[in-house]
Amino acid sequence: MSDAGRRPPFRCAGVIGLGLIGGSVARDLAALGVRVLAYDRDPATIDMARAEGVVAEPLDASLAGLEEAEVVIIAVPVSSLRDVLAGVPRQTDARLITDVGSTKRSAVGSAEAMGIADRFVGSHPMAGDHRSGWTASRTGLFADARVYLCRTRETREEAVGLAHDLWCALGGCPELIAADAHDQLLAYTSHLPHAASAALALTLAGAGIDRAKLGPGGRDSTRLAGGSAEMWTAIARDNADALLPAIDALEAQLQRLRAELARGPEGAIRATLRAARAWTLENVLDNADLKP
Amino acid sequence: MSDAGRRPPFRCAGVIGLGLIGGSVARDLAALGVRVLAYDRDPATIDMARAEGVVAEPLDASLAGLEEAEVVIIAVPVSSLRDVLAGVPRQTDARLITDVGSTKRSAVGSAEAMGIADRFVGSHPMAGDHRSGWTASRTGLFADARVYLCRTRETREEAVGLAHDLWCALGGCPELIAADAHDQLLAYTSHLPHAASAALALTLAGAGIDRAKLGPGGRDSTRLAGGSAEMWTAIARDNADALLPAIDALEAQLQRLRAELARGPEGAIRATLRAARAWTLENVLDNADLKP
Repeated sequence: MSDAGRRPPFRCAGVIGLGLIGGSVARDLAALGVRVLAYDRDPATIDMARAEGVVAEPLDASLAGLEEAEVVIIAVPVSSLRDVLAGVPRQTDARLITDVGSTKRSAVGSAEAMGIADRFVGSHPMAGDHRSGWTASRTGLFADARVYLCRTRETREEAVGLAHDLWCALGGCPELIAADAHDQLLAYTSHLPHAASAALALTLAGAGIDRAKLGPGGRDSTRLAGGSAEMWTAIARDNADALLPAIDALEAQLQRLRAELARGPEGAIRATLRAARAWTLENVLDNADLKP
Repeated sequence: MSDAGRRPPFRCAGVIGLGLIGGSVARDLAALGVRVLAYDRDPATIDMARAEGVVAEPLDASLAGLEEAEVVIIAVPVSSLRDVLAGVPRQTDARLITDVGSTKRSAVGSAEAMGIADRFVGSHPMAGDHRSGWTASRTGLFADARVYLCRTRETREEAVGLAHDLWCALGGCPELIAADAHDQLLAYTSHLPHAASAALALTLAGAGIDRAKLGPGGRDSTRLAGGSAEMWTAIARDNADALLPAIDALEAQLQRLRAELARGPEGAIRATLRAARAWTLENVLDNADLKP
């Protein structure tokens, strides 16, 4: 993280959408001395961000004034990205246009369709939590977070370098990956865990269980279900072709556990639970990672 | 927690099994000035516990010497409880015999079968994590933890009172519940989340995903799978009649999500994810509970 806190190689950035991610990007950039121009569809959010000294210049829906920005970060739900990208190019000749969404094939595809592929790098910072909105945003959100970067077929090296420098300045760990590979990987590492958590929450709700009755492990397992339904709906639909087989695989594992529990010898389910444990413990990041 | 740290109304306790739970009970009791007699099948564990000043008097497998204990706490896997209970009564006329297992119908049934029902209270402290063994034990493990207490058909009031005082002294929050209701409840609040976590871990393992690739939410959701396979096998088998329908209900919710994602209108899956979120957020215990 040697670049964390180092001023990035641009003086002015535009941030479209001041939610948890966009707001946190804006806070970090402002703290690094970057002039932040910003638009949010909620005027109250812009007012708060100005009052806190994070946003130097508010923009309206026309994005007039965005010309000044050398870098544009679009932090809107996956399902809105295409519409926003359609409006941005007319207002900017920024050297880097990036987004922060959880799916990347559609982002890269939209950038190519909008004629800004040479300046576009899709970003996906693995940070955030169930909360959303400006009030949930904070400095340091991206510290030590992996940030996937996906280039288009035409992205210039300069834009890739700027995206790298942007996220390093925010404390993140950028990693280039093809958009296809990203979406396939994230279907398992992020979108499936969310689906599993939501299904578990619905099961407990259906059984009339109060979440306060859960122990720490049960609370951990249902935590992701607390995320924005709008955001996850957009992600799941955008990445459905990768997510559906992942859900099928999870169902198959549940059925296996069920069958071993209902009919198998004791050794069968023990071996299965050992395999699950081995995978989990093989990759322990630190002790805190496995706290209750 | 006004009773936390108050010396319990007994001077000598026997602890059978010095793993994470039994070891932590022994540490807390010793810290409160209670004389701890203890047995563990691993001689090295007993040596460590003596060397640390937690265990005053080691016992051998005959449990000879346990007579002195006014309270006996049995902290062995659910599948070993019956055998241990068969050996204890000959060596003690303790006023309270209790266990710490995650299922309670079988514990209460074993106590009744062994003729110690009048002195037995089943305990289930909702504390601990994936780790096990003496080296994972620690003081304060039960601070603010819910502790379910299950009486037999014949348990004396004095034994219930002692169990209450024991766990209060350790900082826990005892709560009386019928053994049937306990096992039904825990099938959903604890055993199902573990099964879901194990199934998710196996799915990710099967897809060749490294756990280090997960974000904080995915790590949360697979954390429970890191628990002892032996312990969870015993629990799942002991409570299979309650757990199997819970697994079925989870499968049904996964299938619903899958169908809505594959074929439903956008509104269907959004409404489902909203319901999952509402249940999760309705019962937020504190902010830390929903951290990433």
